Amino acid sequence: MKLAIDGMGGDNAPKAIVEGVLLALEDFPTLDIQLYGKQQELQPFLKEHPRLQVIHCEEVVESEDDPARAVRRKKDSSMAKMLEAVKEGTADACLSAGNTGALMAGGLFKVGRIDGVLRPALATTLPTIDGQGFLMLDLGANAEAKPENIVQYAIMGNIYAQKVRGIKNPRVGLLNIGTEDIKGNELTKAVFGLLKEQTDLNFVGNVEARDLLENVADVVVTDGFTGNMVLKSIEGTAGAMMAMLKEAFMASGKTKFSAILMKSELKNLKAKLDYSEHGGAALFGLQAPVVKAHGSSNARAIYSAIRQASTMVEHNVTDVMKSTIAKSQAQ
Amino acid sequence: MKLAIDGMGGDNAPKAIVEGVLLALEDFPTLDIQLYGKQQELQPFLKEHPRLQVIHCEEVVESEDDPARAVRRKKDSSMAKMLEAVKEGTADACLSAGNTGALMAGGLFKVGRIDGVLRPALATTLPTIDGQGFLMLDLGANAEAKPENIVQYAIMGNIYAQKVRGIKNPRVGLLNIGTEDIKGNELTKAVFGLLKEQTDLNFVGNVEARDLLENVADVVVTDGFTGNMVLKSIEGTAGAMMAMLKEAFMASGKTKFSAILMKSELKNLKAKLDYSEHGGAALFGLQAPVVKAHGSSNARAIYSAIRQASTMVEHNVTDVMKSTIAKSQAQ
Repeated sequence: MKLAIDGMGGDNAPKAIVEGVLLALEDFPTLDIQLYGKQQELQPFLKEHPRLQVIHCEEVVESEDDPARAVRRKKDSSMAKMLEAVKEGTADACLSAGNTGALMAGGLFKVGRIDGVLRPALATTLPTIDGQGFLMLDLGANAEAKPENIVQYAIMGNIYAQKVRGIKNPRVGLLNIGTEDIKGNELTKAVFGLLKEQTDLNFVGNVEARDLLENVADVVVTDGFTGNMVLKSIEGTAGAMMAMLKEAFMASGKTKFSAILMKSELKNLKAKLDYSEHGGAALFGLQAPVVKAHGSSNARAIYSAIRQASTMVEHNVTDVMKSTIAKSQAQ
Repeated sequence: MKLAIDGMGGDNAPKAIVEGVLLALEDFPTLDIQLYGKQQELQPFLKEHPRLQVIHCEEVVESEDDPARAVRRKKDSSMAKMLEAVKEGTADACLSAGNTGALMAGGLFKVGRIDGVLRPALATTLPTIDGQGFLMLDLGANAEAKPENIVQYAIMGNIYAQKVRGIKNPRVGLLNIGTEDIKGNELTKAVFGLLKEQTDLNFVGNVEARDLLENVADVVVTDGFTGNMVLKSIEGTAGAMMAMLKEAFMASGKTKFSAILMKSELKNLKAKLDYSEHGGAALFGLQAPVVKAHGSSNARAIYSAIRQASTMVEHNVTDVMKSTIAKSQAQ
């Protein structure tokens, strides 16, 4: 299996990327990696490896670059070259921790959509209190969505939950402002009706944002605007609480001592909230897996995202999505 | 000043309501309260007070009652009678911790809209890390919103922030999926343009859900669907983290000891997150203040909500909204 990886994307690039790549090569014996980036910047962290190929690129897509045009303009960037490799079939999937918008636009433009997929969606696995986690999409690939787009998100999310997360009969929920069937705005009401008709899905109805971390569903679908809002609300609140907690533990000698006593429990708590273990976000609906690792990814998070991309390739997630979408359209 | 209060609404009614009422009567010497509810259920908690009038009602609006019809059908309920008092002018404002939907529908039906207000909005003050808090609306009074509705939310929120929260030149932000001016869906893009034209508002542009708790604005406006989602995401995440933290502190003798050392800091942390101190949610755009205390309100939260309703009356918030909306329509 061949993965193309952007060595220059994210806050900790290229160090974290190279280290994550080396970790993954060690653990996954069937993995070949093409690493794209500036040779001289990658070099300090590189080790020779028989299944690692480094491809020098002159340019880098920066986080400030205009998402819509970055990949088109920077033709010799690590991100553009990585997408190119997937397009040309020299790689089975690709991964970047760089500019999300540029990766989405570039993925759409270079890798292309699966026939019949109206809109690709951005999906990630978020943590739950019990450690199970759930897949949420769309997280903002599209600011607007039509009911039939969200139904496709559900179909694609369901396949991912089965193939990559190993859940037999994933519970698919619709994010809404109440759990009752009749709740919501025009969009969610229309989606609710359509999802009810999808007999191949285990649709469990509406789920509320309040209950997301309580493992109420395995796949939660929503429009990209709402998904992005909810994701950022969860991240913002968790971050704010961790900051407040840290401050509380630093207040005095007594509380600092308390922090020492709580060390392993606090580490557990942090690990539970850390969703990098589940991999990155993936763009669903493209001709090959395009994975977006978090911008702040460390080597471990890159390793997890590589594992995620590999699993998507191994279980033919794209092919299953292709045939399922084709089937759903024939109906 | 005369307040009408629903003695039967909320999880801790009537005890918490009566206790909150008695606390408020003690602290606010110009306050007269009409307390509506089942005499025999209120009785055990009541004390004689010269400025307290108890009005017996046979019925109670339950949390399971159909919001749209509850107040119309239960004509002799404490909620209906309380709204009636405001309508007839025997009370200046009213307050309930009961069924939110029923209170919103009942408020619209009994108390009525301010002329020119297209849609009333539900608003509440949420906590920020620095303790300042911010006002957010609409939290779900309307599942759909047009751009001009959200502009009115901004106008009403601005008045409330000035009059009740005492902020001279409130920063008004539009909740969006990015801070750049051009971000968003069709709705937020349209609202952005309209808010830019509102020269009487200190519009600070788009704010992201991730930064809400960081005090990025004093008033944050959004449509009711998104507002409800974000509110519940914040509540759900904070609740889940508090539960996880509690579990961590209960893990062993060592961690329990640590919890004792951290007692006052943890209490502080909880207090910071507790937005009942800021009062309840208020329905903006009605002919008189209608305040919704949280369903789980204790006596202290009821006291705060009473203070909030009193401040709204004292500063003529409704009249200022009336004249400002009229002026904005004349333009």
